[in-house]
Formats: sequence, C-alpha cells, structure tokens
Amino acid sequence: MSGSRVIRATPGGWAGVEPRSYKDEDASFSGVARHTLLGARDGSDALDFEVRYFQVRPGGCSSLEHHAHAHAVVVLEGRGRVRLGERLEPVRPFDVVYVAPHEVHRFEASEGEGLGFLCIVHRDRDRPVTVGEAPV
Amino acid sequence: MSGSRVIRATPGGWAGVEPRSYKDEDASFSGVARHTLLGARDGSDALDFEVRYFQVRPGGCSSLEHHAHAHAVVVLEGRGRVRLGERLEPVRPFDVVYVAPHEVHRFEASEGEGLGFLCIVHRDRDRPVTVGEAPV
Repeated sequence: MSGSRVIRATPGGWAGVEPRSYKDEDASFSGVARHTLLGARDGSDALDFEVRYFQVRPGGCSSLEHHAHAHAVVVLEGRGRVRLGERLEPVRPFDVVYVAPHEVHRFEASEGEGLGFLCIVHRDRDRPVTVGEAPV
Repeated sequence: MSGSRVIRATPGGWAGVEPRSYKDEDASFSGVARHTLLGARDGSDALDFEVRYFQVRPGGCSSLEHHAHAHAVVVLEGRGRVRLGERLEPVRPFDVVYVAPHEVHRFEASEGEGLGFLCIVHRDRDRPVTVGEAPV
C-alpha cells in the first residue's frame, strides 16, 4: 500500500505518471492520452476507484461507447462537447458530467482547442462496448 | 437513478448545487464550503464514491483529522499547503494528493489566496476523528 503523497503537476502532465496513448492500439480513439493518477489496478492505493486524466488533442475524440459502469467527469482544460445519447452538449472547464450506465457517449475536443478532463470510475468495471462509427 | 447530465460551472459554484458551509456547525473547520457534485448519499447516481469540491477562504483550513478511508484530491484553484502526518507540502492547481488511511491531515489555504480542490471518497466510509488543535 502506498503512503500519502503529493503528485506534482508538470507542464503537460504529472511527475512520475507516464501518459498512455491510444493512437496505436485502438482506431476508435483519436488523439487521446490517459494519465492514471490514483487508484491504479495494481492496488497500491486504498481506493476502489481510479482517478484518470484524459487529454484529447484539438479535433480529437474519445471512442463512442457504452458500458454498465458510470463515469464521473470534471472538465479542466480547453473546449469541447460531450455526446450523451442523442444529446450533444458543449463543455468547458469546471463543468461536471455524469454519464449514466449504458449511455452511449463520447468526448470531443473543439477544432481550435484540446480538451482535458478528469474521469473517475470504479476500479472493478465492465469493458466498454464501442459503437461502430468513425471518429470525427 | 438520475440520468446522464452536465452540471454547469457558474461563478463560484455549480448550477443546482447548493454549497454547504461548516462554519456554524463545526468549529474545527474555518472558512470552508463544500459542494457535493456527484454521488450524493441519496443514491441517485450509480456511483460508490462521492465527488465533492471544497473551497477554503484565504487563511482558512480544513479540520486536522484522520480516518480509515483514503482521500483522492485534485487541487484546482489558489495556493495552499497540505499537512500529511508531520510533513507540510505546498500545493497548487493540478497537483494531486493521496491521503492514505489513518494519516493525520489538513488542507490550508494561503493567506493571500483561497484554495479550491476536488476530494473524492468512498460513499461508505468511517467518520473522521478530529485532532485537538486550534485552526490556523
């Protein structure tokens, strides 16, 4: 079990946190990097949830998907939109998004600015099901 | 169960989220307001965790306390310090803090600026034990 600590913000990320890119592993993502900040699956933190930060490049998006687990999202940087079912809502820093179970959703960065957001999920969760649609 | 939604940031808070002040109910807090954003105990969200935002006024602090549950914190505004056991560490926006179980801790805003941070906790958790020390 890891002890208490401060994980320092650095330009573009966090000290000791290696961002992971999806671009080469899953064509349904486009220009997305993930930083797992707390609660990683190795169980080193006493948390039943993971705190991740996603950076989406300008014009990029997360995959269009659904799953049984919910998402708690807090937008922190840039501009973009979130698709929630048939709705498309603009988002900006400090907006909070709740994605209910089984909702088809996607986060899209604006063309001019990227989008950065925290996404908190239960550690034990089902795998997302990607909906067959080309990324924007 | 509530459906998917965007909770809009407003000046000083969020639309539809009533901040709660501790100042009149617990002398161990000093100038702290809490906004419960997602996962409130009414069970309306399908989340086993709560996402709260704390605003500490300049010179104010949270209570010096410990408990068996862990805290996941992301600082979003202002400047301050976090006490983790015997350590006192400066914090600023985007710094992430993990407070391990049973660690005595307190968040302090600087004299010149307040401190705002997200704090994510398990919904089912033990009550904090306040350590007898006057607020700064």
